[in-house]
Amino acid sequence: METLEITPVILCGGSGTRLWPLSTPERPKQFLKLDGQASMLAQTAARMCDDDKAGLRFAQTLVVGSVRHRDMIRDEVPGARRILEPFGRNSAAAVAAAALAAPEDALLLVLPADHSILRPDLFRKAVGAGAAAARDGHIVTFGITPSFPATGYGYIDIEPGETCVRKARKFVEKPLLDKAQAYLDSGHYLWNAGIFLFRAGTMLDAFRTHAPEILDNVTRALPQAIATQEESEIDAGVFDACPNTSIDYAIMEKFPSVMAVPVEMGWSDVGDYKALWELSEKDADGNVLMGPVTATGCRNCYIRSEAGPLSVSGLTDKIVIATGDHYMACDMAEAQSVKTLASAASK
Amino acid sequence: METLEITPVILCGGSGTRLWPLSTPERPKQFLKLDGQASMLAQTAARMCDDDKAGLRFAQTLVVGSVRHRDMIRDEVPGARRILEPFGRNSAAAVAAAALAAPEDALLLVLPADHSILRPDLFRKAVGAGAAAARDGHIVTFGITPSFPATGYGYIDIEPGETCVRKARKFVEKPLLDKAQAYLDSGHYLWNAGIFLFRAGTMLDAFRTHAPEILDNVTRALPQAIATQEESEIDAGVFDACPNTSIDYAIMEKFPSVMAVPVEMGWSDVGDYKALWELSEKDADGNVLMGPVTATGCRNCYIRSEAGPLSVSGLTDKIVIATGDHYMACDMAEAQSVKTLASAASK
Repeated sequence: METLEITPVILCGGSGTRLWPLSTPERPKQFLKLDGQASMLAQTAARMCDDDKAGLRFAQTLVVGSVRHRDMIRDEVPGARRILEPFGRNSAAAVAAAALAAPEDALLLVLPADHSILRPDLFRKAVGAGAAAARDGHIVTFGITPSFPATGYGYIDIEPGETCVRKARKFVEKPLLDKAQAYLDSGHYLWNAGIFLFRAGTMLDAFRTHAPEILDNVTRALPQAIATQEESEIDAGVFDACPNTSIDYAIMEKFPSVMAVPVEMGWSDVGDYKALWELSEKDADGNVLMGPVTATGCRNCYIRSEAGPLSVSGLTDKIVIATGDHYMACDMAEAQSVKTLASAASK
Repeated sequence: METLEITPVILCGGSGTRLWPLSTPERPKQFLKLDGQASMLAQTAARMCDDDKAGLRFAQTLVVGSVRHRDMIRDEVPGARRILEPFGRNSAAAVAAAALAAPEDALLLVLPADHSILRPDLFRKAVGAGAAAARDGHIVTFGITPSFPATGYGYIDIEPGETCVRKARKFVEKPLLDKAQAYLDSGHYLWNAGIFLFRAGTMLDAFRTHAPEILDNVTRALPQAIATQEESEIDAGVFDACPNTSIDYAIMEKFPSVMAVPVEMGWSDVGDYKALWELSEKDADGNVLMGPVTATGCRNCYIRSEAGPLSVSGLTDKIVIATGDHYMACDMAEAQSVKTLASAASK
């Protein structure tokens, strides 16, 4: 089997508030050691290790992130090249920057920095399976075989069939529950995990056709020597005018030959504390207790202190978080409303 | 009506853990501003104001407390005399010290420092009613007319009748629920609130008869000039050997002529967070929110931060406390188990 070289491109600019107060604008989710061991960013990078079985080698990682997180990016992915944005302009601009920084023939694998993948071997296998299509000029997306009618993700409608690489027919927005159920039942809808593989040249052509304004802006905003620098900063004065558009909207929904590879790899976007609780190792009572926590008579709770001692008693289905700056307690059913608490707290 | 002079004796040595982590050994409940306004100790002292209607004047307050709380006692009751204990030896020793520090004919009103009384006017009226009996050589106790079959208080069995000062027949320990219900139904049992009125000389005689060892120890442990000093310290070397006994056990249960005055004065010993929640002013959702707290979708909660910002969401019947040193969250039904959390946390 031929061995292909893949360049991981980690999109690290997110500033989610759904794991607030653990996650903050200063230290968003991808920089947190949610499992107490390694940051999600470091895990994302580590996942992309050479894999003979999958026929993959990985070139130097490229991280696109915020200039305010420069040091954390350097610490978490020490060997990576960095493109630093002065502020976020969404994923289309970040992908364009990555494509401009790479040789035309490089195969770029775009990866969100803050997802959890329990079976990276299956992921790499899928990447290996999709690589030929990417080399042939397709944009290849890796979609998650849905396990429940999720209303929190976008979906990809793919051609029915048994082959592992199939044509993606349509990208659709987050559905309501009945539609999500129909997608699940159909067997040919995947969750859009924002993971893409393509030739740099393919993506640049796609931008020229479908989003020339973004490409033009990013080209001007990047330093001339982008292809050779270890660290490049995007010019704020230019970048300010860049359209703020997702890669899905700017390119994927318009590009005529997107292929999709369905994967079942224990994926989670760890979108809220409930998801984090589900992913985490629990004690016999279903509790996740992290940091200096004393719990008695609690069940199915996520209790974590990153600061002083925290004592809890008689709680069921609750989230309690203490950091040096903030304390938060809510019902597990309210996990999605944490971002509301975060924005209320920042006022 | 004759006006009597009463000397308030505030017993301030308690170190309760049931409002932990708000209350700590360094700053127990009586020093906390539970209502956000004034400490329980200051409120206890302020309650004893001259009252023509009740026929009462109050002499200089005497506080018996711990030497480690010296400054707080001075701050909270600026005009008081202080007797400072090197460590606690329970209420019998504290009452003996107070009796030794006062003229024989002084009427001493012993008051726990950490109770809440919503109707101090009714309390003073009861004190006025009991004063004559105290002057005549009785120990007069002010018992609370029970409003539910409490199992957390001791009871006083008094002679049935309609008069406001009646003979106390027996002091009984905290009962089980069926017994508490029987006490409540009988109509002649009162909650023992630990509030007593007596002539200093009466109490000293009672000690000589029923607890001479305590009186002897405290007499030796107190400085010679006790009667005239603003502040007296009890000698640790002597006091160490003093029996550790409650005034109920040492004197009240044995003294032959205890009288009782039933009072309904909105009394609470604020024995746990549930009691504190019940006493506190609540918002329309039944929540008590104190300090930098943001709450959404919560009901019947006691949420308080004495430290950084605290956000809560979707909680019902919960207690959440943040202090600079500790965070605590528990179900309202677990309010009584807070002392267990406190002791676990101090290990």
